[in-house]
Amino acid sequence: MPELRRDPIIGRWVIISPERAQRPRELARPEPPRQIGLCPFCPGNEKLTPPEVLAYRPSGAPNEAGWKVRVFPNRFPALRVEGTLEREGEGLYDRMTGIGAHEVIVESPDHSRSMSDLTAQELEGVLSACRDRMLDLRQDGRLRSIIVFKNHGEAAGATMEHSHTQLIALPILPRHVQVEMAGALGYFDHKERCIYCDILKQERKDGVRLVTENAECVAIEPWAPRGPFETWLLPKEHRSGFEDAPRPQLEGLADCLRHTLRRLDAALGKPAYNLMIHSGPLNERGLPHYHWHLEIMPVLAKTGGFEWGSGFYINPTSPEEAAEFLRKAPV
Amino acid sequence: MPELRRDPIIGRWVIISPERAQRPRELARPEPPRQIGLCPFCPGNEKLTPPEVLAYRPSGAPNEAGWKVRVFPNRFPALRVEGTLEREGEGLYDRMTGIGAHEVIVESPDHSRSMSDLTAQELEGVLSACRDRMLDLRQDGRLRSIIVFKNHGEAAGATMEHSHTQLIALPILPRHVQVEMAGALGYFDHKERCIYCDILKQERKDGVRLVTENAECVAIEPWAPRGPFETWLLPKEHRSGFEDAPRPQLEGLADCLRHTLRRLDAALGKPAYNLMIHSGPLNERGLPHYHWHLEIMPVLAKTGGFEWGSGFYINPTSPEEAAEFLRKAPV
Repeated sequence: MPELRRDPIIGRWVIISPERAQRPRELARPEPPRQIGLCPFCPGNEKLTPPEVLAYRPSGAPNEAGWKVRVFPNRFPALRVEGTLEREGEGLYDRMTGIGAHEVIVESPDHSRSMSDLTAQELEGVLSACRDRMLDLRQDGRLRSIIVFKNHGEAAGATMEHSHTQLIALPILPRHVQVEMAGALGYFDHKERCIYCDILKQERKDGVRLVTENAECVAIEPWAPRGPFETWLLPKEHRSGFEDAPRPQLEGLADCLRHTLRRLDAALGKPAYNLMIHSGPLNERGLPHYHWHLEIMPVLAKTGGFEWGSGFYINPTSPEEAAEFLRKAPV
Repeated sequence: MPELRRDPIIGRWVIISPERAQRPRELARPEPPRQIGLCPFCPGNEKLTPPEVLAYRPSGAPNEAGWKVRVFPNRFPALRVEGTLEREGEGLYDRMTGIGAHEVIVESPDHSRSMSDLTAQELEGVLSACRDRMLDLRQDGRLRSIIVFKNHGEAAGATMEHSHTQLIALPILPRHVQVEMAGALGYFDHKERCIYCDILKQERKDGVRLVTENAECVAIEPWAPRGPFETWLLPKEHRSGFEDAPRPQLEGLADCLRHTLRRLDAALGKPAYNLMIHSGPLNERGLPHYHWHLEIMPVLAKTGGFEWGSGFYINPTSPEEAAEFLRKAPV
């Protein structure tokens, strides 16, 4: 059974998930994602995955081919829905049962297309499926937050080739959201304005860190990026929860995401990347100080090791330089 | 000129260091550390590095062979000592001139030996050189903290094969230290005890997460590790600054570090790793609530990408399992 453990000093919760365990030696040895004969994410192989919890399927029966986007529980979940939420101490330490959900969103029936190959309409379908799952999961009062993320490429942690996004629903607020919420609240208390709205205004005026923009959404290189080509997508309209975004906003985000991914592909030669939606707590809605957004972090060959180990960042590429490079990328 | 930039939301400072820049395409393409004919870290090649700032050399002249440990400024420093510390705003953003120091500590004259091959006495020399440099640098009132770190192996960010440690002196407190200090202070305010001292006590009593121990120092797998085989070395005697540690404590740490690295090598097949000394602020000494320590994070093939991008951690190996494996490792 997975469990959540809290670091007693800094309060960071981590998931200890032994069901995903490998022997220590396996952990150390790089092994390319194995391409078994049958891809369980491909149409026709629906029986190889747990039963779906959602699919956009113009016609046909559940767990059969014909879908555009398909969502099912992860076969090796980091957390499980079953059981009761129990907290306990062990000396000065704290733990919690690993209640939650871990789902896979297959983005397209086509095995050969990566996220940047999808049309804006197809991308909107993926985002829409994430939103629909969040709306469903937030009815479970035990869950406090949902992380939607994507690992693209082996270096980013992907273990399946067929393009997919994942979703983890948690009974806690992960530290990076906690810290963002606290920082944004501090600014709001001072100014009575959302800091993300102010960032949007300044970036659209300055223009030097702007990558692309449409009616709904802006892509920027943030002022203090942790690594080269860290990129944020911010919706123009203020809203704290991604799951409450209306369809036009998702359409705008899909279009902006498509442009951004294509520019990153062109500039960096199809890099591995991690993508993550930062969204407010499920049980605190309509917050004036928090603003959902999407972060993309390319995993580049010459950076990462020290930074991941230390939590301290040295970035050789200024965001202004990266933004200019992305704006000029031949797409 | 490098500069420090502050993230406006969470207050994290990052170094933007364009002097270390590469073209975007270079960033993306993995390139093994090139072994040029002459290693600038080897004895006899001292002229290929900036002049040394410290060396342990039983005999002979500065910047010549004969040293055991040698320290010089990084040729491509992330920060520089020259200049004045200036802070300025840019709209809602903050920046600071990149004042500081970035030095290289070559651990041994022998090109072929890694840190885990060093004797406890040689390791004590490396730690001692770090301490001596910290004591010297803290006389500069502009500097607030020093990070001592090591990237071992390409996957951990090492670009030179010859084993070395690095040191970065900063005019700010990096976020990971800030966060630890705040957490430790919160505990102290509540209990009037150091949380690290309490962790030491509990871990020595429980034993399940203990890796190795001597009179001065304990190596443990922490309760809530970010990844498999994250390992902490804690001195038994409470002290907030590493640079104030007396020689017997460094000797004990060296012995404990040697045992730990050898166990990690045996268990994981000589993994790449990042090592870092967490030490209190230079201008606040003798803090009752903070306790310097050393953290080691192996860089394992199947983890890292998502975690680095997201700040959220799923760990397939429990610390109890990792500790048992390390205790049984054939060394």
